[in-house]
Amino acid sequence: MHTAAEVLADVFLMFLSAKLAGELFERLKQPAVVGELLAGMLLGPFALGWIGLPSAEMVATFHGQAEAIEVLASIYEVIAELGVLILLFLVGLETRLSDILRVGVRAGAVAMAGVVVPFILGYALMAALGHPTLEALFVGTAMVATSVGITARVLADLGHLHSDEARIILGAAVIDDILAMIALAIVSALGESGQVSVPAIALVAAQAIAFTAFVALAGRHAVQRWSIHLERLRIRNAPFVVAVLLMLGLAALSAQVGLAAIIGAFLAGMVFAELREQYQLEHQALPLYELLVPLFFVITGSRVDWRLFLDGSLLGLALAVTGLAIVGKVFGCGAGAWGMSRRSALIVGVGMAPRGEVGLIVANAGKSLGAIPDPIFSVVVIMSVLTTLVVPPILTVLYRGRAAILTPAPETTAEYAVPDGRLPDL
Amino acid sequence: MHTAAEVLADVFLMFLSAKLAGELFERLKQPAVVGELLAGMLLGPFALGWIGLPSAEMVATFHGQAEAIEVLASIYEVIAELGVLILLFLVGLETRLSDILRVGVRAGAVAMAGVVVPFILGYALMAALGHPTLEALFVGTAMVATSVGITARVLADLGHLHSDEARIILGAAVIDDILAMIALAIVSALGESGQVSVPAIALVAAQAIAFTAFVALAGRHAVQRWSIHLERLRIRNAPFVVAVLLMLGLAALSAQVGLAAIIGAFLAGMVFAELREQYQLEHQALPLYELLVPLFFVITGSRVDWRLFLDGSLLGLALAVTGLAIVGKVFGCGAGAWGMSRRSALIVGVGMAPRGEVGLIVANAGKSLGAIPDPIFSVVVIMSVLTTLVVPPILTVLYRGRAAILTPAPETTAEYAVPDGRLPDL
Repeated sequence: MHTAAEVLADVFLMFLSAKLAGELFERLKQPAVVGELLAGMLLGPFALGWIGLPSAEMVATFHGQAEAIEVLASIYEVIAELGVLILLFLVGLETRLSDILRVGVRAGAVAMAGVVVPFILGYALMAALGHPTLEALFVGTAMVATSVGITARVLADLGHLHSDEARIILGAAVIDDILAMIALAIVSALGESGQVSVPAIALVAAQAIAFTAFVALAGRHAVQRWSIHLERLRIRNAPFVVAVLLMLGLAALSAQVGLAAIIGAFLAGMVFAELREQYQLEHQALPLYELLVPLFFVITGSRVDWRLFLDGSLLGLALAVTGLAIVGKVFGCGAGAWGMSRRSALIVGVGMAPRGEVGLIVANAGKSLGAIPDPIFSVVVIMSVLTTLVVPPILTVLYRGRAAILTPAPETTAEYAVPDGRLPDL
Repeated sequence: MHTAAEVLADVFLMFLSAKLAGELFERLKQPAVVGELLAGMLLGPFALGWIGLPSAEMVATFHGQAEAIEVLASIYEVIAELGVLILLFLVGLETRLSDILRVGVRAGAVAMAGVVVPFILGYALMAALGHPTLEALFVGTAMVATSVGITARVLADLGHLHSDEARIILGAAVIDDILAMIALAIVSALGESGQVSVPAIALVAAQAIAFTAFVALAGRHAVQRWSIHLERLRIRNAPFVVAVLLMLGLAALSAQVGLAAIIGAFLAGMVFAELREQYQLEHQALPLYELLVPLFFVITGSRVDWRLFLDGSLLGLALAVTGLAIVGKVFGCGAGAWGMSRRSALIVGVGMAPRGEVGLIVANAGKSLGAIPDPIFSVVVIMSVLTTLVVPPILTVLYRGRAAILTPAPETTAEYAVPDGRLPDL
């Protein structure tokens, strides 16, 4: 009971600070998500220490300070995971497969170029500085991922979730996550065995691609065919319950087959996208979003260890990696967006830049395998956080210019109103 | 990441089994909550072991089997806690203070009689069997509490949350929780020091009563006065967000001042009860309910250790304590409901019988203080679970006779439709 009471106080503090910071940033015309991340950094164990640090009672319960901290971290990891699942589920609900396919070739080109360029830049920098090959490969891999969560949230906050750039970013980010997970699977296998066979790589890659394609196509078909039966169930709000069930199930399945759980949540949302209006799925998912998604961002912010910045040389390396991570995505993805206006290509490139939790997953995997030492782990963490922090204000500026040019059609405005709970500021 | 992935798979399994069992029990005309509890018992670590048992990977992460089990239990405790908070918050939203005050004297009488009679019966049984005084006091205290969660859920499932009996039960259960927590505070102090002073008891009691009265009255006044300002906030769905914030804050505060966190959640709901229609608070809380409340019941079910039943003499004692726990509430609360029809008095008495998580809290406190040995802990756990399990079917039968007699007025039917998400079967 004491652990639950302690976590409850922390959750209250996280939620309160998220909403206060969100309110402040909204008034400053900045996305609320930046405020939530900063609130987490401020309250976290490395700054004020108001959240994430166990009480003496919890330390006694779990037989040690380090153990109690680990338990609290696990609990907040689960809460954050539920939050990011809900976020990607809602983004999925917004994403009709037909819309993705419409931008499919473009998204594929953006994703591929956005994976290859940062990987080569990261690997080359580390190799040039004399780091071992495996370390360089891990840093390159961490620079591959795109954390679509931050960008999706900023796009939603700005009311541009239905723009062409947003569709390309979301489509490319899904492909990106799969490519990042394949890259992680490969370097992890390298880290564990010292060698990896071409058939094993091919198997992992085929599995990931088949999973996504199968779920997206078969799932959509099944839901459309069986949706009529949902209304016959006796449980309350059956369509919403079944959608949430699919979200949890596909997320767990994604994690099982070695992909990020958020891919499953996104696919579950996409599978129900055509039914969202009929069953008010978005309206029902929104309260879950309001509670859990801010907690995800506060918890992510609280994990930033500021003390690492005090080491000048490490900070220099971190800034160099961060710079290459952003340049790599802007040029790589921008090149993939060739033929669009320069501003649109820039929006796509910047939108793909946040590494967020996906970069952190790669960093954790490398650290737990012993493939990267603590300082390089810190560098990757800083890169993940900085790429995440700089994107929202840049996107806001890029879209602020756009708003006057592109007025959405009335029916689009009505659609904006649903995920946002209000009309966008146009 | 591996812990989160493992928990995710468990959460999916819990949610799936809860909904399958719920659907089955609805079709059998039984409350879904019983199916959810049984699903938890079946899947839990003491039966199939599909949930709550850590993987080898988690055992390695947390340096031991026992440690990993403790971590998983802590995580599920937090999820269950969020679930029961949402449940009591929604019940609070349904409870206008004016309604509670209308049944206040009656609820007070029911609560007092329902606390005194079971306490004396439990204490007398254990003392007569030769157990130490402190053990007998703890068993008596565990029999004092009422877990309003189960009853509230059954009443909601049956569509009788607005009946007079329900109001008395909910009002008395709130008073009961406070009395139980005072009793627990007293016996805990006894357990720790061996003696307790009258001023200390008076202080704890005064604190608890003052907290509840202050929050209920001042909170309602503040919300009514400041609700107009809620609409000026920039954050999305501000009224709902502020209500959830108050739920978390009062729950954490309740836990801090030594009351159960659920009392705070209930009070937060009650404070917003007058505003619930204006801001669609119930509609927005319902998706949180659909996700988290079934998890609470599955997790509660999964904690039942069936192996204890294999010891015949312990089973006998457990059944005797359970019998007295039910008889004590039925006669005690029934006496408090004097003057109502016999069936109404019976509904009140039976509705007050479940001990659920409140009994478990007392058992845990006694065990961690070393005041009660493991077998007596097991007895209290079995009593908490059995009193919880037998009540829903009995209440269903008692209300089934009533349904034909009492047809709610149209506006009441409309109110039923909100928390239930559908019209009740009348």
